[in-house]
Amino acid sequence: MAALTAIDYQTDPSRYRHWRVEYDGDVAYLIMDVDQAGALNGGEYELKLNSYDLGVDIELNDAVQRLRFEHPEVRAVVIKSGKDNVFCAGANIRMLGKSTHQQKVNFCKFTNETRLAIEDASENSKQIYICAINGNAAGGGYELALAADHIMLVDDRRSAVALPETPLLAVLPGTGGLTRVTDKRKVRRDRADVFCSIEEGIRGAKAVDWRLVDEVVPNSKWKDAVAARAHEIAARSDRPQDAKGIKLTPLARKIDGDRVSYPHVGIEIERARGLAAITVRGPAQSVPASLAAAHALGDAFWPLAVARELEDAILHLRSNEREMGVVLLRTEGNAQGVLEHDDFLAQASGDWLMREIRHYLKRVFKRLDVTAKSLIALIEPGSCFAGTLAELAFAADRSLMLVGTREGDNRKPAAIALSAANFGAYPMGNGLTRLQTRFLGEPKALETLKGKIGQAIDAEEAAELGLVTVAYEDFDWDEELRMLLEERASFSPDAMTGMEANLRFAGPETMETKIFGRLTAWQNWIFQRPNAIGEQGALKLYGSGVSPTFNKERV
Amino acid sequence: MAALTAIDYQTDPSRYRHWRVEYDGDVAYLIMDVDQAGALNGGEYELKLNSYDLGVDIELNDAVQRLRFEHPEVRAVVIKSGKDNVFCAGANIRMLGKSTHQQKVNFCKFTNETRLAIEDASENSKQIYICAINGNAAGGGYELALAADHIMLVDDRRSAVALPETPLLAVLPGTGGLTRVTDKRKVRRDRADVFCSIEEGIRGAKAVDWRLVDEVVPNSKWKDAVAARAHEIAARSDRPQDAKGIKLTPLARKIDGDRVSYPHVGIEIERARGLAAITVRGPAQSVPASLAAAHALGDAFWPLAVARELEDAILHLRSNEREMGVVLLRTEGNAQGVLEHDDFLAQASGDWLMREIRHYLKRVFKRLDVTAKSLIALIEPGSCFAGTLAELAFAADRSLMLVGTREGDNRKPAAIALSAANFGAYPMGNGLTRLQTRFLGEPKALETLKGKIGQAIDAEEAAELGLVTVAYEDFDWDEELRMLLEERASFSPDAMTGMEANLRFAGPETMETKIFGRLTAWQNWIFQRPNAIGEQGALKLYGSGVSPTFNKERV
Repeated sequence: MAALTAIDYQTDPSRYRHWRVEYDGDVAYLIMDVDQAGALNGGEYELKLNSYDLGVDIELNDAVQRLRFEHPEVRAVVIKSGKDNVFCAGANIRMLGKSTHQQKVNFCKFTNETRLAIEDASENSKQIYICAINGNAAGGGYELALAADHIMLVDDRRSAVALPETPLLAVLPGTGGLTRVTDKRKVRRDRADVFCSIEEGIRGAKAVDWRLVDEVVPNSKWKDAVAARAHEIAARSDRPQDAKGIKLTPLARKIDGDRVSYPHVGIEIERARGLAAITVRGPAQSVPASLAAAHALGDAFWPLAVARELEDAILHLRSNEREMGVVLLRTEGNAQGVLEHDDFLAQASGDWLMREIRHYLKRVFKRLDVTAKSLIALIEPGSCFAGTLAELAFAADRSLMLVGTREGDNRKPAAIALSAANFGAYPMGNGLTRLQTRFLGEPKALETLKGKIGQAIDAEEAAELGLVTVAYEDFDWDEELRMLLEERASFSPDAMTGMEANLRFAGPETMETKIFGRLTAWQNWIFQRPNAIGEQGALKLYGSGVSPTFNKERV
Repeated sequence: MAALTAIDYQTDPSRYRHWRVEYDGDVAYLIMDVDQAGALNGGEYELKLNSYDLGVDIELNDAVQRLRFEHPEVRAVVIKSGKDNVFCAGANIRMLGKSTHQQKVNFCKFTNETRLAIEDASENSKQIYICAINGNAAGGGYELALAADHIMLVDDRRSAVALPETPLLAVLPGTGGLTRVTDKRKVRRDRADVFCSIEEGIRGAKAVDWRLVDEVVPNSKWKDAVAARAHEIAARSDRPQDAKGIKLTPLARKIDGDRVSYPHVGIEIERARGLAAITVRGPAQSVPASLAAAHALGDAFWPLAVARELEDAILHLRSNEREMGVVLLRTEGNAQGVLEHDDFLAQASGDWLMREIRHYLKRVFKRLDVTAKSLIALIEPGSCFAGTLAELAFAADRSLMLVGTREGDNRKPAAIALSAANFGAYPMGNGLTRLQTRFLGEPKALETLKGKIGQAIDAEEAAELGLVTVAYEDFDWDEELRMLLEERASFSPDAMTGMEANLRFAGPETMETKIFGRLTAWQNWIFQRPNAIGEQGALKLYGSGVSPTFNKERV
């Protein structure tokens, strides 16, 4: 990946180079057939053997998302390979070798998020994923399979699942591999140790016995068995029979120097101060008159539109504005409109599309939680930190709220308003809502807050209730904010990243938080070590025929 | 710390340079009064302002341990400073600046373990810790306080608690600080963010309001208030009234080239292969005739003796044999004797000393769990992997068991035997027993295994039951073992450390595993980054008057 080419997370099937989707009634086949000449941004590596780079994963993420929104009729999705005798060789090693540390970490993060989106689709959209491994699934290839609910492996005395990162590359199966092997598949730890040490992997009945896959099927019966299993699993889904999907149309995004604008979201970069400001706008229209009217709006329905735009903004800032270490989070518009949309979504929660939208918003907020930028919410007159949009303030590392009004500004004082959505619709990766996480030490506060649903909470009350970090008068605001931003800019970006990754996830750990918090942090360390990336390191020398030379000291 | 001087974890009060203990009935005062000229192994830094290095922590660990065993009458322990107006300035920065990466990581690990030992004493020995902060408690100084059950802060308009690592040093409060702030003290995450950004810390009523300390006391009432609180907390303890402590006498340890021997434990180093072999011997004597007889044995009582020696062996290998990446775990002796000692401990579990011994064994096995070496248990004829000693096999990354006998060896085939101790006495940091963790995917296996308590389980049955990784005949043993050790030696030590740290802790995370698995991994990464340790890094430049220069890229 060239460091200076912007990465675009938007795509659509007409532009896919690596994936295609085939439909068979309630089953879709998501077929990986990587174009080896299709490296992202013209990267100088070949995507052989269905190995992937970020570009391949951007398409996968898009495909998973479209299946949920555009294909309510699909109840089971089979991931398989379009190539003979190879399923997927994992992340492309030459790409990793040429990547900067930041690129590697960012790539792994997005890949993790896509795997979690697959699991979220199985669990919450009842669009259940199956992985049909017709060939070798190595490294990231097997990690992709691990995201599926059901893993089938062809029994042809050749096809195997493997996590060869450690023996081959001196790094970890770091995009969920180790954690999913022990915590999702519940493979016995000493077997996991053996499995992660074997370059060639494990195949056949032993792969089932070790819980690495759910079933093996002889080659002769493969296609029928996969189809039969897919239809059987599809029958467990609660997705509707005769619903019509909605089209995810291209985002109306304008990039103009240091400004990126979408209909409901704007980004402004202040390069000299290392700042990006995101502004999210509340709904301009009132809620649809009916569920049918909401469906008819398609991706123009405000909650969905805002989710798509905010997600793209977050991904853009992560990849393309790496030196902007602080993100200011602002909202503007009609708080009442946000609350009404929340109510609409809650009342229609049995509808498949409203369910999708809610889970999508949940995933977008989760992207914010794992974004390595300091998040500072600014709650000022004219803002609409209400319900769903109040999650932005609760996701922030700090939140500042203005007391009263500003001179010369006739807008009402800022208020926060809660909706039922703040109490369950958008759990974090740790399984708790942001308010639960926030008030871990004062669980009674949650009851008090529930009693305030729908009310306008002004700055002094919000500070009293613990909803914001601090409330300032207009008199102090600019100076306090300036000092905070200067202070933040003076800190080590690495220390900030580590501190935020720890402080944001108080309380329980889940498989998801273990992947981001434990596995990723170990991988980040290993990615920096000379044994991996030094001149004699394994990642550097891979494919050269020269064996790596390791410093034997155990740290 | 000079890299080539061996670190000795053994000490006793007659040799303390930094701590002293004073007794007041059921309360002990553990007084930190660091000798600034007393750096470990003559290190070239001054331990000013009660800052500490590994040597200070070795004494603290010893003192905590002796209080438990030698002072059953002590029911509350007050940690305080022996200096005026300063509690503890945390880890010595110059020491950190001069340390290698390995030394920093190893130092933090031992410090973490000592903090956990303090929490274990409060919780499980009912020797409850109070921290009386009479001065500034910064960084590791406040982290030490966080280990206490109750934190008191003098309210003198000056004394504060602070975690200034991030603003001052571009690293994290990494020995538990971040995790204990959010998960133990349950400080609100945005307040934690503010607190961790303020060099000067927080004092007075605000420190209570923010949950950073439990109470503040005016200077004038300080001494009496601390004593009163300590006696009040002591009254909650269930420790016995008239018991007599036992003396922890110096270990009979001989270091002879590549061999370290203790009465019940031996270490042999095979330097060329990067191997250390630990052999633990079963009891030579039968169980004591009575509880009184066990007390009379003092630290010669086998379970206690073995715990002390094994702990010292583990710590020695970590610090002084860094290039020995693989540890072979062997036992030899009388399995029946081990089981009888387990039964003795279990039957006398109401006795304070037996309780101490059990929790001590638990902590020693936990040290093994977080040791960054590949652990391979070898279960051969003559071994005694029974009950408590079987935990060694369950702590191992892999276990190999010999089927049948060896030619020319008339000892019986190897057997594993379980005792009740394997089902609850020695939980790992994740809160589960090693068998529960091992069989996370097959919980029914635990019931089967409980039915086998006390039986000799031979190699084939052990493999069938999943108790060992693999069973080999004599014919294959040497070759298979040789290949395994060569393979392990060929892997990147860093990747092994990361892989093991992930695979060993399947299942739930606790505050303890979060500290070792999440926080430590982030800190390891940050410790490697140029922003901390580069020529322009904060850790390097601290105290020079020159401000660090950071690469602003967020990773």
